[in-house]
Amino acid sequence: LASAPAVHAAQPALRWRLASSFPKALDALHAAAEQVAQQVSAATGGRFQIQVFAANEIVPPFGVLDAVREGTVECGHSASYYYIGKDPTFAFDCAMPFGLNSRQQNAWLVDGGGMALMRELFAGYNIVNFPCGNTGAQMGGWFRREIRSVADLKGLKMRIGGYAGQVVSRLGVVPQQIPGADVYPALEKGAIDAAEWVGPYDDLKLGFYKVAPYYYYPGWAEAGPQLSLYVNRQGFDALPAEYRQILESACAAAHVAMQARYDARNPAAMKKLIEGGAQLRMFPRDILLACQKEAFALYRETAAANPQFRKVFEPWNRFRSEQHLWTRIAENSVDAFVGRHPVE
Amino acid sequence: LASAPAVHAAQPALRWRLASSFPKALDALHAAAEQVAQQVSAATGGRFQIQVFAANEIVPPFGVLDAVREGTVECGHSASYYYIGKDPTFAFDCAMPFGLNSRQQNAWLVDGGGMALMRELFAGYNIVNFPCGNTGAQMGGWFRREIRSVADLKGLKMRIGGYAGQVVSRLGVVPQQIPGADVYPALEKGAIDAAEWVGPYDDLKLGFYKVAPYYYYPGWAEAGPQLSLYVNRQGFDALPAEYRQILESACAAAHVAMQARYDARNPAAMKKLIEGGAQLRMFPRDILLACQKEAFALYRETAAANPQFRKVFEPWNRFRSEQHLWTRIAENSVDAFVGRHPVE
Repeated sequence: LASAPAVHAAQPALRWRLASSFPKALDALHAAAEQVAQQVSAATGGRFQIQVFAANEIVPPFGVLDAVREGTVECGHSASYYYIGKDPTFAFDCAMPFGLNSRQQNAWLVDGGGMALMRELFAGYNIVNFPCGNTGAQMGGWFRREIRSVADLKGLKMRIGGYAGQVVSRLGVVPQQIPGADVYPALEKGAIDAAEWVGPYDDLKLGFYKVAPYYYYPGWAEAGPQLSLYVNRQGFDALPAEYRQILESACAAAHVAMQARYDARNPAAMKKLIEGGAQLRMFPRDILLACQKEAFALYRETAAANPQFRKVFEPWNRFRSEQHLWTRIAENSVDAFVGRHPVE
Repeated sequence: LASAPAVHAAQPALRWRLASSFPKALDALHAAAEQVAQQVSAATGGRFQIQVFAANEIVPPFGVLDAVREGTVECGHSASYYYIGKDPTFAFDCAMPFGLNSRQQNAWLVDGGGMALMRELFAGYNIVNFPCGNTGAQMGGWFRREIRSVADLKGLKMRIGGYAGQVVSRLGVVPQQIPGADVYPALEKGAIDAAEWVGPYDDLKLGFYKVAPYYYYPGWAEAGPQLSLYVNRQGFDALPAEYRQILESACAAAHVAMQARYDARNPAAMKKLIEGGAQLRMFPRDILLACQKEAFALYRETAAANPQFRKVFEPWNRFRSEQHLWTRIAENSVDAFVGRHPVE
């Protein structure tokens, strides 16, 4: 059958630039921005083009929010917890230690009042935000030596970013900010003792297992870190209504696909890591409990000092608490059963 | 700022009909089709309209696949395991007992080879399929009496559909097919002993807790049942490429939103059920193990008899096995920790 012709002569032709916080080497992260661009182009017969630039091509990785805010680029793809130095409230849009997993994050945003709160936060930065990807629960990081108790954290030099760095610093860890490419040599030389990165699929590429073989879980710091598409407010408002919808729907498709790619690719990567010598270890319970306690102490201190944070934290925390109980019943119980009782 | 005008004079105006398998009363399920229609309209300036009809308005709930296949309607929203009577392979598009959870299902379809296999299956029915919603892990059902061992399943009359009905019948359960509206009186009179429905949000409305108070989990029969949008092949091929992309992206957005709504609403519904007298119970391990064993025996028998099923089962089963192990490490361990150690 011949397709009906679609003519777009009267729709505006637009060419946008998208600055990503991620290098092409983190291909599962980077692909989300490419997918948004591809679907937007396909849905508009090529009239609305978004050109994707990887980290540092036109904007440095942590400069994406400002670049979109100021209209240097029309849009960007980033992780909102990169901006907790501006306002810790940004962490709710990405990952809070011991916070929501990826499904719970979707639930909070779509139907739990979260999107209105995040839109209000981003409005203060001249940005319209859309969820655009999630890695799922990450791993807890690579350690040169086993960690047996809270006492082992004292003085530990660890590459760990954002809010989680603040949490573990309360237990004596010395958080380090080191670019991805420098982590391996720092671990190898013993300049640092441990490093948090992403999960098996991304971690395998950097080879950390060769120099820091103890691979800890669960990734309590990032139980469901979300990526977001940032759109400059004036640019968004100037779009035809059709293009606004097309952009939003394309973000949803990329949101599903990123998590799916990580989930599909992590098991084979984990197998290779273990074959290569990675030693899987679960964080001891006393460490998890101590980190959890410090995380919530930090949240409460932040809420006391920052009204914007408090306005989000209080409803988020009630939502989180109910979600954690519910997830334990339905989802966790079936996942746990099939995990413990494998069928070949 | 004024919006740039978008004129669509030259794009085809289309009016499609969508037959849903779900009544409006199952609002979280039904909403997905409405959302697809709304986003498609918004993305096309109202040129591509999809009118949504609830179950039985123009097509009976289990007639949706045939109606789309024959072009009676251009598209439909359904649960593919309704059609296992035509071919049990349809269950892979929705839910397999002890199969994939919702994230694993996305991973399989998007990046694990699943979509190509499902597209091939549906091509034989003149349909192009798109994932369009998921409820997440359901509950295991309502029971008039406690179930303590496999022996208690013998002769149990239970409303349980599809593949799970076949699994439990191998353990002595007598599966019953009863329309939703008739389940409550059947439980009340003792005409049946148990009934599987959905999860707290939907189950609360029907009031089963008043007549069959034991509410079992996990919902091993439906760990991540997916809903799908079916599009008639000729109708899809005749769409302009832009509309095809718009429809696909809109399905992705509805896919995210349905699961989010269930996740956001289930905890409050569960609280009301428990306040109303529902007694939460976990299925005893020996029952879960027996059901799992029978499920995989059934799959292997089906695969031996049905080449189409075997072609999907073999790669699906390898994917499932790897996913179950990986989920146990990263996702399940953090979910389990926060579930067991609540913070108020």
